[in-house]
Amino acid sequence: MFIEGGIAAPQGFVAGAVHCGIRKNTNKKDLAVIYSVRKCNAAAVYTQNVVVGAPIKVTKEHLVDGQAQLIICNSGNANTCNADGVDIANKMCELIADKFKVEQQDVIIASTGVIGEPLDINKISDGIERIKLHKDSAVEAAEAIMTTDIVIKEMATTFEINGNTCTVGSIAKGSGMICINMATMLGFITTDVAITSEMLQLALVKSVEPTYNMVSVDGDTSTNDMVAIMANGMANNPIIDKEDENFDKFVEALTAINLDLARKIARDGEGASKLLVVNVNGAKTKPDAAKLAKTVVNSSLVKTAMYGNDANWGRILCALGYAGVAFDPTQVGVTFKSTHGEITICENGSSVQFDESVATHVLNDEEIVIHVELNEGNECATAFGCDLTEKYVEINGSYRS
Amino acid sequence: MFIEGGIAAPQGFVAGAVHCGIRKNTNKKDLAVIYSVRKCNAAAVYTQNVVVGAPIKVTKEHLVDGQAQLIICNSGNANTCNADGVDIANKMCELIADKFKVEQQDVIIASTGVIGEPLDINKISDGIERIKLHKDSAVEAAEAIMTTDIVIKEMATTFEINGNTCTVGSIAKGSGMICINMATMLGFITTDVAITSEMLQLALVKSVEPTYNMVSVDGDTSTNDMVAIMANGMANNPIIDKEDENFDKFVEALTAINLDLARKIARDGEGASKLLVVNVNGAKTKPDAAKLAKTVVNSSLVKTAMYGNDANWGRILCALGYAGVAFDPTQVGVTFKSTHGEITICENGSSVQFDESVATHVLNDEEIVIHVELNEGNECATAFGCDLTEKYVEINGSYRS
Repeated sequence: MFIEGGIAAPQGFVAGAVHCGIRKNTNKKDLAVIYSVRKCNAAAVYTQNVVVGAPIKVTKEHLVDGQAQLIICNSGNANTCNADGVDIANKMCELIADKFKVEQQDVIIASTGVIGEPLDINKISDGIERIKLHKDSAVEAAEAIMTTDIVIKEMATTFEINGNTCTVGSIAKGSGMICINMATMLGFITTDVAITSEMLQLALVKSVEPTYNMVSVDGDTSTNDMVAIMANGMANNPIIDKEDENFDKFVEALTAINLDLARKIARDGEGASKLLVVNVNGAKTKPDAAKLAKTVVNSSLVKTAMYGNDANWGRILCALGYAGVAFDPTQVGVTFKSTHGEITICENGSSVQFDESVATHVLNDEEIVIHVELNEGNECATAFGCDLTEKYVEINGSYRS
Repeated sequence: MFIEGGIAAPQGFVAGAVHCGIRKNTNKKDLAVIYSVRKCNAAAVYTQNVVVGAPIKVTKEHLVDGQAQLIICNSGNANTCNADGVDIANKMCELIADKFKVEQQDVIIASTGVIGEPLDINKISDGIERIKLHKDSAVEAAEAIMTTDIVIKEMATTFEINGNTCTVGSIAKGSGMICINMATMLGFITTDVAITSEMLQLALVKSVEPTYNMVSVDGDTSTNDMVAIMANGMANNPIIDKEDENFDKFVEALTAINLDLARKIARDGEGASKLLVVNVNGAKTKPDAAKLAKTVVNSSLVKTAMYGNDANWGRILCALGYAGVAFDPTQVGVTFKSTHGEITICENGSSVQFDESVATHVLNDEEIVIHVELNEGNECATAFGCDLTEKYVEINGSYRS
């Protein structure tokens, strides 16, 4: 069950955001803070890029002890590939820790935006002075971490452990530079569940695998991607310290949140006109299914065909073929599904007679499922992406201007 | 030295093309034949896609004996993922072999175009009846193999072995679905040099590595890509049967031809407005350098930035970072070069002060070199690609219509 309240929905969490001037548009908030009244157990997953943003380096150090109390994030500048990026990130942590009386070591820091331009600490400092935290500022925090995102991405849900209501809240940003097979974007999660740092890390990894790690917008992999979670234990449930039934409930709630936000990120891919969901069924192994699904959702030719409502399934077979997975092409079936209906256009690796106008109608929808049946085994996977439009080019041809 | 004559430049080769009706546009030739008056030693490299077109299967069988005499290629339909694709490909070979009195086993066959639609053998048969072969029809053959290509791609050159003039000619097609790390497109090469099949195969592989295998237009990898070569020995040079000086001369000529055509393919990428050349220098190993160069040239974000004349070098560092190669980001330098000048925008992995207007001027050219210096070793590699424009989306959103 999803609820209102976003990142500040769980007990003991507040949030806030200001426009501090990193972004030129004064209507666009660019500095967000998420704070827990109690120190939290915390965990994170990070980008797999060799080039790592300064904030990620600092956060990794701060999370060595598995604890945190506050998240600070600016948009508009990634604070990456700057000679003094780590110093600036540390200074940001120091200023925000001072203001809200938390330990500097307990600050999770993130930055997103242009790479390679100096981040002006004076603007950040000014923003920190002005920032105020409230329960009802959650949506402003969600706004402030957006870059080229169009849609605000927040979500919260509850579940019960032994009669205690536990809440999970989250905000995320995505849009461009979202790629497969990594901690794909910026996501912050809060929860009042009581859980050890070790189990929190494990739950996060498990919930990211079928959600954020299955999203691809453009195949590029950012230097600054991170999903971080803080758990303050204020739900007063018996602490989760092993992989038991309660752990499973938490992972389920976390996965539901992440899935919702992952889908929103894919749908809100730069310039996207529709969400693409690629199901690969009947694979020999789970990793095979995942690799095939991600390769299809990442193919520029598939993405443009879906944009054009063109049932050009040959491009799907072609993408499957270069995924680096062995399979028998003569067994493959492909079906398109949407709210407008469904149509099978390929069986046994060959074209079947189908009505082009029906196919076009099925594809002319805001969410399209490409269902691939390999007929070789029992494993499946689902990947999320979007179509490729002229708008993507427009946005990224002039991102810095 | 490049010469006129294209695919029919070497002694003993003729070519021809007709419009047979596979393509709707009657002004567009869609069936090409290349013929040698003498049986040739022959070799080929193929797509690495798991889904392989019927013509590729047939050609592989025909080249088991390392010999061929004729190439037939249609555009407009890939004859792939059709239940009876191999039968149709065999029938095409039979018809053309009958007409020009060559053995069916000595036909190299290729098809390029839409996947999954039946190829009409009656149209092919009609085309074969009408086709005529001449020295001066080489350019028509080059035209007939084009799909969404805009520019005709043909090239020929000569070199000497012991006073004998040897000639190499070639035609190629590229445009979309061109990817890194494979026999990236359709290329046919003729030569009158005398060389064994084994040495011909080796020379082809060596010449493809730094040329066609370093081209990427959209990261997609076709089911039908192939580069095939026929050598009829009519130059009467002492036969090349080992890796000696003469072999090296031949590889050099072949590489020059392939490089020219690979660059043309990249420049003529679907919707491209400019050629991107990515040099990676100072790598620890050659494969590292190649992987890094190809990842940069293949990044949608780099490609759109170059389209927008935007010196957004952070995207270059980012792409280097996810190439799957270990390197020290704090050592990296990036310089942009064009006929308008050059400008270094990154040193030691960090931004340097540079004049944006100068950078924009340098990038506002039809060919841009992105020079990356890793400062870690002595190996280098060059990859070829193009920018990503609204036009790419337009072309591929409506390819079949």
